Amino acid sequence: MVASDAPIDLRLLPERSSVDTHGRLSIAGVDLVDLAETHGTPLYVYDEQELRDRCRAYRDAFGTADGAANVSYASKAFLCTAMAQLVAEEGLELDVASGGEAHVALRGGFPGARMVFHGNNKSDDELRLALSLPAGRVVVDGFDELDRVESLVAGGLAPPRVLLRITPGIDAHTHEHIATGGADSKFGFTLDSGIADEAALRAATSSRVELAGFHCHLGSQLFDLDVYEAAADELAALAARLRVATGRPIAEINLGGGLGVAYTAAEAGGVPSIAVFAHVLQAAHAAACARHGVLDPVPRLTVEAGRSIAARAGLTLYQVGTVKEVPGGDPYVAVDGGMSDNPRPITYGARYEAFLPGRAAEARPLRATVAGKHCEQGDLLVRGAQLPAGVSVGDVLATPVTGAYAHSMASNYNLLQRPAVVFVRDGEARVVVRRETLDDLVSRDVAARGQTEV
Amino acid sequence: MVASDAPIDLRLLPERSSVDTHGRLSIAGVDLVDLAETHGTPLYVYDEQELRDRCRAYRDAFGTADGAANVSYASKAFLCTAMAQLVAEEGLELDVASGGEAHVALRGGFPGARMVFHGNNKSDDELRLALSLPAGRVVVDGFDELDRVESLVAGGLAPPRVLLRITPGIDAHTHEHIATGGADSKFGFTLDSGIADEAALRAATSSRVELAGFHCHLGSQLFDLDVYEAAADELAALAARLRVATGRPIAEINLGGGLGVAYTAAEAGGVPSIAVFAHVLQAAHAAACARHGVLDPVPRLTVEAGRSIAARAGLTLYQVGTVKEVPGGDPYVAVDGGMSDNPRPITYGARYEAFLPGRAAEARPLRATVAGKHCEQGDLLVRGAQLPAGVSVGDVLATPVTGAYAHSMASNYNLLQRPAVVFVRDGEARVVVRRETLDDLVSRDVAARGQTEV
Repeated sequence: MVASDAPIDLRLLPERSSVDTHGRLSIAGVDLVDLAETHGTPLYVYDEQELRDRCRAYRDAFGTADGAANVSYASKAFLCTAMAQLVAEEGLELDVASGGEAHVALRGGFPGARMVFHGNNKSDDELRLALSLPAGRVVVDGFDELDRVESLVAGGLAPPRVLLRITPGIDAHTHEHIATGGADSKFGFTLDSGIADEAALRAATSSRVELAGFHCHLGSQLFDLDVYEAAADELAALAARLRVATGRPIAEINLGGGLGVAYTAAEAGGVPSIAVFAHVLQAAHAAACARHGVLDPVPRLTVEAGRSIAARAGLTLYQVGTVKEVPGGDPYVAVDGGMSDNPRPITYGARYEAFLPGRAAEARPLRATVAGKHCEQGDLLVRGAQLPAGVSVGDVLATPVTGAYAHSMASNYNLLQRPAVVFVRDGEARVVVRRETLDDLVSRDVAARGQTEV
Repeated sequence: MVASDAPIDLRLLPERSSVDTHGRLSIAGVDLVDLAETHGTPLYVYDEQELRDRCRAYRDAFGTADGAANVSYASKAFLCTAMAQLVAEEGLELDVASGGEAHVALRGGFPGARMVFHGNNKSDDELRLALSLPAGRVVVDGFDELDRVESLVAGGLAPPRVLLRITPGIDAHTHEHIATGGADSKFGFTLDSGIADEAALRAATSSRVELAGFHCHLGSQLFDLDVYEAAADELAALAARLRVATGRPIAEINLGGGLGVAYTAAEAGGVPSIAVFAHVLQAAHAAACARHGVLDPVPRLTVEAGRSIAARAGLTLYQVGTVKEVPGGDPYVAVDGGMSDNPRPITYGARYEAFLPGRAAEARPLRATVAGKHCEQGDLLVRGAQLPAGVSVGDVLATPVTGAYAHSMASNYNLLQRPAVVFVRDGEARVVVRRETLDDLVSRDVAARGQTEV
């Protein structure tokens, strides 16, 4: 990447970002430096309207079927009760992949009927919960799970609507950790050796499940949308073969998610819009269904979206604690968070940018490494960051595009307290998740022998 | 690594492990399958006596000075109040790297006077806490921090005993993320360009700190101990130069930690014992001090130990939920935890073994991938695991050597609930950290608008 000393590219920030005449950055009318002072750092900040706008753009682009959106929000990207409520209000469906995600969503008032229950290894408790959600759907991932669902239904629960997760053997060009579509995957029924066909036949003819359709997911952070054409073709072909075998039509084909986002200015020009994403998938789906005669009806096309809804709506505010000069190298600018509040750099080698919200209009000629405060050399948030000259102790520093997979993957490593989450809107900020306290860190500790409970 | 179908190598388990005539594995007289049934899975299990034995071995090998052990336990590896109490009882000192670690340790009854306060970017609050611990030591990491400490003392706090963290420019052969000794590090004062000498001179002549000595840390998970010779030499040389410049002797040299542990049978033969580790460091320190005339007195040699105390004492129990056959590939054995309870495989590419505690005497001919339950293909706990034939749904599966950096780095990703921690001893198990509940997952969520608190 060619280093640029330009100010932070506003395309990496929520749309309601603006820089005032003093060079200070506000989001939705809320000054970020003031916000850091009021609520402390590290702090996750989300533009609430940006989250809503992205949900609406998806709903508009993919439409609805019988009043239900053809898009579900992937809660693993970012979930808390406030986010569940927001997604419910914006009318999307919701992917959950654990009892915990379902629990938080229900607490946020999200209707169970609009949940889609995912996971390669759901527990009996999770399946029982999934089957108790009226009209929700269960994405069945393997034969062991089909056994378990049928056995729960035999035990008295109502037969669920299921999607079968299919592994189409398509190699999406993304990070190995998040490429999920290849045949050698922990997820789903592979098309190889007729395994997916066997599963489809079994589910279609079982009295204990209602086969609604097929699901696949190619990977995350995808920029090249061509891969969806092959996936649509494989699923339509599978639906056609099932119809020949059983006469049964398929009601729904879910092509998963994966639309990428730009984390750096260098990527900002290359991200397909939600509208383009929808157009490509709809065209691929329609063509595939026509090609294989999957008509009357054409299955409902559904998709999932997590990162592309949440990532750019959020950023993280830190305070600079030390600046360390390195002879012959980039200086280290250490902030008061790190790999515990954003594990993506150390886990995936993820790249970010950094900027100073109090000096957002200035050039950023200083190449630096933004380091976290953990006792670990790999705890580096941004390598090759560009910052204004003279960044110094006490400055508020922001990393944009941290709205997905930061809060949701946060840990207490080094027993740091996890940050608060603030939603900003119309010039006001509200805390939706409070900062962890020192006492929270011992809330699960059982008093040792000879100790009294404090 | 050549695959072996041998049963699990008992060198990867706590010493009090035994396999009964039915092939079931017990630790300290507690059957692991029973333990999983009683306490649920995933479950972190520690042999309490193994933790104590390792602490004692370190104390014996490195000795004491004025009653204080020359070894501090690095709490980032694994800390809860019960562990803090254990370390206090075994008479080690304690490294803490955050206010959170200090808080948990104090709750466990650990005396502040035996804490060593680390970190490349301590906050004002953390420094205030460190300076309020009577007789504890602060490892000062940079000039900004020296400024801050002096300013707190100017404000009325007592001058602390400090160690200066030195970056000796030594390239330890370990994973890039945990190699901390190189000159281009976020930590410490580099010896390059006279920076460490300048810091030493400033601290030695400041009335606001009491310079106790120097600290360095080369990296983690080291097997090759030769690198300590160069580190001892550099720190002794620095002490000698300071004595020439100021006439002041140095009381303590801390060579950090880093002793590796075996995670797999293939590594089990190559790990130096604590006694050998002590011998190498003591010899290097004595020789370096003699070489540079750092005598009268020879500085106290201190070290740190985290992983080599906690790792092998702990293992994680899971339950198998699905077994997925892959045409032409290793089957996936999915368990009820994953990257949230052990982030080391996805973060560092860390290798582990796996075994079935209920069938611990059996050969393990089946090559498999042990997968977690997270919605992410990279959530694989053990690639190339060897398991008994016929591993099946419901089996208890264990990954050994997870006592360090599993509980401490755990997250709530996918809103999984973090596991309980159980200490076993003399045939009994006690819960020291209770399992997270569904309600814990929303304990920090602030009720959304229009919602009532439930």
